[in-house]
Amino acid sequence: MRISVPATSANLGPGFDCLGLAVSLKNQVVIRPSKFHSVSLKGEGANNPALKDNNMFISIFNDFYHNLSNKKRFFRFEFFNEIPLSRGLGSSSAVIVSAIASAYAIEGIELERDKLLNLALAYESHPDNITPAVMGGFNVATVQDNEVKYINKHMPRSLKAVIVVPNRPISTQLSRKTLPFKYSKEDTVFNISHSSLLTAAFMSENWEMLKYASQDMVHQKYRMKHMPELFDVQKTALKNGALMSTLSGSGSTLFSIAYNQEANKLEQALKAKFPHFRVFTLDFDNQGVKIEI
Amino acid sequence: MRISVPATSANLGPGFDCLGLAVSLKNQVVIRPSKFHSVSLKGEGANNPALKDNNMFISIFNDFYHNLSNKKRFFRFEFFNEIPLSRGLGSSSAVIVSAIASAYAIEGIELERDKLLNLALAYESHPDNITPAVMGGFNVATVQDNEVKYINKHMPRSLKAVIVVPNRPISTQLSRKTLPFKYSKEDTVFNISHSSLLTAAFMSENWEMLKYASQDMVHQKYRMKHMPELFDVQKTALKNGALMSTLSGSGSTLFSIAYNQEANKLEQALKAKFPHFRVFTLDFDNQGVKIEI
Repeated sequence: MRISVPATSANLGPGFDCLGLAVSLKNQVVIRPSKFHSVSLKGEGANNPALKDNNMFISIFNDFYHNLSNKKRFFRFEFFNEIPLSRGLGSSSAVIVSAIASAYAIEGIELERDKLLNLALAYESHPDNITPAVMGGFNVATVQDNEVKYINKHMPRSLKAVIVVPNRPISTQLSRKTLPFKYSKEDTVFNISHSSLLTAAFMSENWEMLKYASQDMVHQKYRMKHMPELFDVQKTALKNGALMSTLSGSGSTLFSIAYNQEANKLEQALKAKFPHFRVFTLDFDNQGVKIEI
Repeated sequence: MRISVPATSANLGPGFDCLGLAVSLKNQVVIRPSKFHSVSLKGEGANNPALKDNNMFISIFNDFYHNLSNKKRFFRFEFFNEIPLSRGLGSSSAVIVSAIASAYAIEGIELERDKLLNLALAYESHPDNITPAVMGGFNVATVQDNEVKYINKHMPRSLKAVIVVPNRPISTQLSRKTLPFKYSKEDTVFNISHSSLLTAAFMSENWEMLKYASQDMVHQKYRMKHMPELFDVQKTALKNGALMSTLSGSGSTLFSIAYNQEANKLEQALKAKFPHFRVFTLDFDNQGVKIEI
């Protein structure tokens, strides 16, 4: 059985804790019945042996598997990870979503995507990564009465994501601590209106509006100051054809959107100026979690 | 020449200062060349003679007319007003928009809707009433670099607006003063996410999402406490088929949306419980300002 889950970019511009997108970098795991438990890990994180022994995927998988099954079985888990760790690309959400989905799938128990989403919420309280990880596409998500309420929209093939992945993380904890406890009425209204306009732009495919609508007063500048080079990445992206350029999650990745025909130029400009960072040009993912038996 | 402009409901739920809709109550004015200046006023405000003498429409019309024309002409203005005054239904925006449009039309000078919108901004800095007044439909609007940036969507014929217009206003000034200067991070995130979800619900016509998405933490409760009966109006509306029920503008009107087949039941329930308030069942307006030469 093979499960794959896409990388996600959440906290999209003004859409703090609510707007997220899925892109075509994927974490995959192949799971096979085996005589004994074993794990292999390739790709992102493969050079960190702690990830094999203290594996969040297997811990969550076991939680669900033991609840769903009365058999004692062992498995071989082969991980192929493309999603960079601790860079604001939803690697934890990918692990949570794929571990829960796997436990159900391996027992042959059907699991609706909405139910998967709400089960994942117990492990990740922010809905803007888990929703695109499960559903793919562009998502507006919020939590009410312990349920994710969301609206989802496919992304077109005419756009690419161009992401710049720095060679180090911004600590999520440090990053969360740097946010103010209170916001002025002006900043609050700024983000309410811009996040709504950004949502309308995605829903109506009005891409020329992204540059205006993607501005934020609530989280980006507080987090990006821990890695000031990111302001330069953003400026460079916007100068070289990006329709928008925002911090991905709580960083350190910077996420840009461009028309197909502009994406290569944008990637080259970013690679030339930031040779110590990785730059990926990606399609958007409209499938979300995918299970092949 | 006849100009009409629809009533508008702004500050829609969590969409403080950015989400607004147009409904089918209209202010109309017929303007004819005349030997001397004269004004007649029927409908809302007709019992207030001050509105005839100190008329905002004529003052704005004259500002523009004198700039556009080198002729000295007199007009007869006949106003037919359906939009209640000072009840949060955009009567000022209607006046501003129609006055500017009239001055251009009477001189035969074409005026694009986008330009009209930005001219109106000089008189009304909040874009969420003037945008639906000009464009009709559902609108997300914000101001950047002295321009309104907006996205517009038609409303379907399958929905009605049911509005409850109290017998007195909430003072806008009092109402603005009661708002906090600062908001907690939780309230800020609540409104960013709910306003975005509400926008996605209108854009994708996901009407079942309105009830969740229309909740607000930033303005409604602070304003409605000046007329506590409004909480009861809101509760009654939601119990009797309203898909959402929110304060209109800064009040005192309460604005609800219902499916066509539920609208009559909703109107009757509201009329029975609040006999001292006016209740209107209205279509949504998708035309905005309309000029007939």
